[in-house]
Amino acid sequence: MMMDEKTERLRDKVRRFIDTVAIPLEQPALEKDVAALDAACRHLRTQASAAGIYAPQLPREWGGLGLNWVECATIFEEAGRGMLGPLALNCAPPDQPNMLTLMHLGTEEQKQTYLGPLARGEKRACFAMTEPAPGAGSDPNMLQTRATRDGNGWRINGHKKFISGGVAADFAIVPATTDEGVTLFIVDTNTPGYRVSRDITTVTGYQIGGHAEILLEDCPVPENGVLGQIGMGMKHIQLRLEPARLSHCMRFIGRARRALEIAHDYVQTRDAFGKRLSDLQQIQAMIADSHIDLHASRLLTRECATLMDQGVSVKNESAMAKIFVSEAVNRVADRCVQMIGALGVSDDTVVSCIWREARPFRIYDGANELHRAFLARRILQASITP
Amino acid sequence: MMMDEKTERLRDKVRRFIDTVAIPLEQPALEKDVAALDAACRHLRTQASAAGIYAPQLPREWGGLGLNWVECATIFEEAGRGMLGPLALNCAPPDQPNMLTLMHLGTEEQKQTYLGPLARGEKRACFAMTEPAPGAGSDPNMLQTRATRDGNGWRINGHKKFISGGVAADFAIVPATTDEGVTLFIVDTNTPGYRVSRDITTVTGYQIGGHAEILLEDCPVPENGVLGQIGMGMKHIQLRLEPARLSHCMRFIGRARRALEIAHDYVQTRDAFGKRLSDLQQIQAMIADSHIDLHASRLLTRECATLMDQGVSVKNESAMAKIFVSEAVNRVADRCVQMIGALGVSDDTVVSCIWREARPFRIYDGANELHRAFLARRILQASITP
Amino acid sequence: MMMDEKTERLRDKVRRFIDTVAIPLEQPALEKDVAALDAACRHLRTQASAAGIYAPQLPREWGGLGLNWVECATIFEEAGRGMLGPLALNCAPPDQPNMLTLMHLGTEEQKQTYLGPLARGEKRACFAMTEPAPGAGSDPNMLQTRATRDGNGWRINGHKKFISGGVAADFAIVPATTDEGVTLFIVDTNTPGYRVSRDITTVTGYQIGGHAEILLEDCPVPENGVLGQIGMGMKHIQLRLEPARLSHCMRFIGRARRALEIAHDYVQTRDAFGKRLSDLQQIQAMIADSHIDLHASRLLTRECATLMDQGVSVKNESAMAKIFVSEAVNRVADRCVQMIGALGVSDDTVVSCIWREARPFRIYDGANELHRAFLARRILQASITP
Amino acid sequence: MMMDEKTERLRDKVRRFIDTVAIPLEQPALEKDVAALDAACRHLRTQASAAGIYAPQLPREWGGLGLNWVECATIFEEAGRGMLGPLALNCAPPDQPNMLTLMHLGTEEQKQTYLGPLARGEKRACFAMTEPAPGAGSDPNMLQTRATRDGNGWRINGHKKFISGGVAADFAIVPATTDEGVTLFIVDTNTPGYRVSRDITTVTGYQIGGHAEILLEDCPVPENGVLGQIGMGMKHIQLRLEPARLSHCMRFIGRARRALEIAHDYVQTRDAFGKRLSDLQQIQAMIADSHIDLHASRLLTRECATLMDQGVSVKNESAMAKIFVSEAVNRVADRCVQMIGALGVSDDTVVSCIWREARPFRIYDGANELHRAFLARRILQASITP
Repeated sequence: MMMDEKTERLRDKVRRFIDTVAIPLEQPALEKDVAALDAACRHLRTQASAAGIYAPQLPREWGGLGLNWVECATIFEEAGRGMLGPLALNCAPPDQPNMLTLMHLGTEEQKQTYLGPLARGEKRACFAMTEPAPGAGSDPNMLQTRATRDGNGWRINGHKKFISGGVAADFAIVPATTDEGVTLFIVDTNTPGYRVSRDITTVTGYQIGGHAEILLEDCPVPENGVLGQIGMGMKHIQLRLEPARLSHCMRFIGRARRALEIAHDYVQTRDAFGKRLSDLQQIQAMIADSHIDLHASRLLTRECATLMDQGVSVKNESAMAKIFVSEAVNRVADRCVQMIGALGVSDDTVVSCIWREARPFRIYDGANELHRAFLARRILQASITP
Repeated sequence: MMMDEKTERLRDKVRRFIDTVAIPLEQPALEKDVAALDAACRHLRTQASAAGIYAPQLPREWGGLGLNWVECATIFEEAGRGMLGPLALNCAPPDQPNMLTLMHLGTEEQKQTYLGPLARGEKRACFAMTEPAPGAGSDPNMLQTRATRDGNGWRINGHKKFISGGVAADFAIVPATTDEGVTLFIVDTNTPGYRVSRDITTVTGYQIGGHAEILLEDCPVPENGVLGQIGMGMKHIQLRLEPARLSHCMRFIGRARRALEIAHDYVQTRDAFGKRLSDLQQIQAMIADSHIDLHASRLLTRECATLMDQGVSVKNESAMAKIFVSEAVNRVADRCVQMIGALGVSDDTVVSCIWREARPFRIYDGANELHRAFLARRILQASITP
Repeated sequence: MMMDEKTERLRDKVRRFIDTVAIPLEQPALEKDVAALDAACRHLRTQASAAGIYAPQLPREWGGLGLNWVECATIFEEAGRGMLGPLALNCAPPDQPNMLTLMHLGTEEQKQTYLGPLARGEKRACFAMTEPAPGAGSDPNMLQTRATRDGNGWRINGHKKFISGGVAADFAIVPATTDEGVTLFIVDTNTPGYRVSRDITTVTGYQIGGHAEILLEDCPVPENGVLGQIGMGMKHIQLRLEPARLSHCMRFIGRARRALEIAHDYVQTRDAFGKRLSDLQQIQAMIADSHIDLHASRLLTRECATLMDQGVSVKNESAMAKIFVSEAVNRVADRCVQMIGALGVSDDTVVSCIWREARPFRIYDGANELHRAFLARRILQASITP
Repeated sequence: MMMDEKTERLRDKVRRFIDTVAIPLEQPALEKDVAALDAACRHLRTQASAAGIYAPQLPREWGGLGLNWVECATIFEEAGRGMLGPLALNCAPPDQPNMLTLMHLGTEEQKQTYLGPLARGEKRACFAMTEPAPGAGSDPNMLQTRATRDGNGWRINGHKKFISGGVAADFAIVPATTDEGVTLFIVDTNTPGYRVSRDITTVTGYQIGGHAEILLEDCPVPENGVLGQIGMGMKHIQLRLEPARLSHCMRFIGRARRALEIAHDYVQTRDAFGKRLSDLQQIQAMIADSHIDLHASRLLTRECATLMDQGVSVKNESAMAKIFVSEAVNRVADRCVQMIGALGVSDDTVVSCIWREARPFRIYDGANELHRAFLARRILQASITP
């Protein structure tokens, strides 16, 4: 993978940071502890700023390094090697896409009030989209949360579930239906009627703000809480999805690479039945296939990033990348577990955590089955030459 | 799958017990809590005894139902549907194979002292085989734990790792090398020099006695602590492996079926994009493939069980069953996670736990790669007609 | 796989016949030559009769050995090892299911006129079901061939395609729609208006009577040409499908085993990079997986056969067997090609022919995608416990 | 996939040529007929020259278009859509890599005598490397063909097998061992002692010059028949392999795309069970996965081409591309067969031919198992960061 010198230098800096600062802080006890994770995060961000690697994706005016998407591909992968890496660089979900959304849609006032603190790492937000059945799950059109006009503002009623980052968030971006169509609202989480009912435990770890279940009961939102245009929420959401999905690919490639590094070390130092594990062809096949998976994943991701930097729509390319990369990193993580044996299913290395964490990526950002169906329909309808 | 009426009646009884007694006690908080799990276990065993379904695999003289392997296949699967099911019926590892080992190798005295309490559920044991590198992992010949004669008895030194059931066990069966070859020893865990250094957390849940790391430091064992013949340990271990592996298959088929039941319910009641999930062909394909996987798994397991009941060696058949079933249940669990979406990666159903728990089965009882290599060699060497 | 002594003796006899009589006659030139294949067939049947192994599946009254389905599973597999084996024993499609259909539905007169000659190997028939688009392909309900009453008989008009065995057949069983519903007709191929327009070349070889395209133009059929009940054709066809499908499984398991035998020999005698191929783990994994595939295929097939012998419906079981076995034999054949390298894609061994021949099995007898969809729907509708 | 305007225009020209000139000449009868194929080839090359698309990869001095590797990637894919396309453009194997070898290693005289006629399409050559067991197959070190000095020249004895293009070739490039090591020789095929014993039939079609078995018996070669340096044959062969392999990837992507175009048309016009095939999710998944496979294949190939254009070694990248692309095009071809059903296994479309032709690509240019083992070893030995 070729890159310019500037990106290479930055990559090396991030790699050193991850290896010497972020990885040493990893520990199973952090995995599901929202408060401890927030604390680790604050600590790491200070250090990342000092190292000159903070917020690579943000424009310089918001305190970032102003990288384009192709450059981000390299840096997000590098950060992704550390379980705390993207958090340290403030390029982790949900705030990385939240900041994108605010940058695109926010009024000047909203940017100062909400984007600024996110960019500086002073606040955390969540994007409260999904709902329990029969609400919006994989199908956003099933949205049940409702906002009704109330004097100069709005009142929102709804039930949200699996909201990543929702525990102890400072504000939420909430899609709700209105008479004019789906609309995005910014809701301060200390608003009366807004309540996090629980942190849903899942197979993943190191998720900042966990996965919240949230109730909105007659929750008041002022008029300036509307984000973007009234009734244009679905379009605004679409805008967010492609970069969010692609950023996930970048970070997860780093995660899988980390697991593979650990497997490399293991198979080169362990013996069984009189042979070094790395001399066994079944191990070699797993090593080779994992490198092929990561190489192809990077190429699919970089191709998308290149197009995005050119302002070209990447609907099909990002769907292809999402499907391939999410399955590739699952395969890589699974092979790494297998290569390192019992160690791979324990918390003694991060491989088991990476394996668990990769699983939902085949579901989040649209289940791969949905992407397959829609991708095929778009291709066939457009009579795209195969 | 055909079966006689007696087995069918017993199966129905076990199914009712699992649904009405065992499943209601399941809760994520139990997953990794050894003491709470022991308590739940004691409670459930009393009820299983009352229901006349306790210890299906044990001979009547040891308080069991005296089932043969083919009958066990049905009952273990049924018990396996409950996360606490095999524990409730005292047919869970490691004590189920521990009891087999004691029955085959134990002196009358050892049976009274050790097998009796296990069979009655009064004590728990572990089989302390695997060691950290460079000791015995997948290759038992790398055993480093050493027993040396000391007066009328022995002293054992060694380091054991990933010992399922080792936390708070009452005694351990410990393979160690001696001048005469590998030998099995029964070690009471309150012996000085025997120490559980920690419970290794892993991706699995509901493992009675967790996964212990154990240190044996000049640990004394009396002469009557030798189990079986001195120097015949490797052969004794082999004896244990085939039934242990096959019993795992039986229980895991039940686990995967449980996940599939939950997926069935989900896809028949949830909609997306204007369709019932169960009407989508990608879902249908996952349902069909899962049933095929379970059907083939049952047939491979039952074939082995039939041969074992006839006293025929099942070296190749049990290797084939282990490889196929361990991968099939992983596929089924993975599809169930995918079918139920975000719910599938949360602890809100047991599907995520089943998915995690199935993973190590491709590693435990011999990594599948090893089984493939050895199976192929045996087949080729014997010039077995394909 | 256990079997009684009688079956074992018969299996050994068939194996000897295949190895010493049938296999020596195999040659690429025969693959697509309908006339030469018919001649080889006549020759082999005489010898099979002399060897006492002719028509194992036929009742004794029709000159067969009267085996039940479980016994057939063993013998069909054995015959299937030879590319000419099932033809030699007159248990090859399409006449094996044609004879079943005639036995079930034929009048006494039809049995004498049509079944007798088929059973004695004096005539050949075809089952002319599928049609070019938009006619009956995978969906039999799209049947376009039409039979209209004409005096005391019928006139049939239609266009049939991919009719296995249709070239130089003596008669055809033709499903056609009538005012009373789909009806089966026996049509002598020398009837005016019945014309084979061509032999469609396909990837397969050794197909008796090739794959015909057939035109029926005002083709007259007398009243006694109706097979079974008028309007009950669809039900009659269903009846045929399950045994046809299962017999295919049996024969194809033999085919795949043959390829595996050749691969066994090859990897045990060839070296590369200083090693015997059979010592390489990637080869061993292919060997192991192929044996597992065949073992599971046999068990799924035998389970179905057992149920069929008991008169139990095997709708789901035969669908599961068809899906699994058709894909398993493709995997085995593919691995055998890979193991023997360039030789595997040449006509110098039958492996390439077996690889090609296995491919359509995932399409014939209902494409596997259809079976998956219908199987899942039946399972879900019946609320069958997974 | 972005490209400059010049390449885009050329691609469009080639596409038109393939669609209007090359594809209309395709017919099953050509598949295995060496003479007819040579004739079709001569005809097509004249037309390709007239169209200004002849020999895209050759330098202008040799009558080509002088494209670099990245440009070739686009044009070879486009040519590869036609079964006769690469032959028409004279960028088909074995002469495309033969010309590369002659360009790199040939003396001025050899270039005039051998390269010129190949470039102009007046002669055909073959690269006679592989031998029957126990000679050079996947392991070139097992080379048994021997060249011994004889006066001013050499005498070669050997047995070659599976030599693509060897039937009716004008000359052969023959690797043989000498006292100084492996050496390449140019052998005119009308030399006494050089004999093509047969054309080995294989699963593939449209192979110019078939697959020859060749005997060299005391075959005299003059001193100026040595190609490159004496004793440096192995290194010379290596040089050839990477571009040969990558060119195969480019052409095969085109082949697979052709099959997918046919499947597109089919599923959008055929119905089953009341639905258009393209509306079924299992079909959609096959369409989506095929596009992902082709997209990733293109990216892996283009990445290699970019590096080759920069003169960078692509040992690992070309191995990864070869493994991935050869398996991806097999998957695509297999899905296309399945999507179009019975038609897909017949010669009525080229899909069956593409499916057959793709299979050996997993074996030729080094079996994928070998590439996996060597790739993993190189990666592990170099301690390459994953």
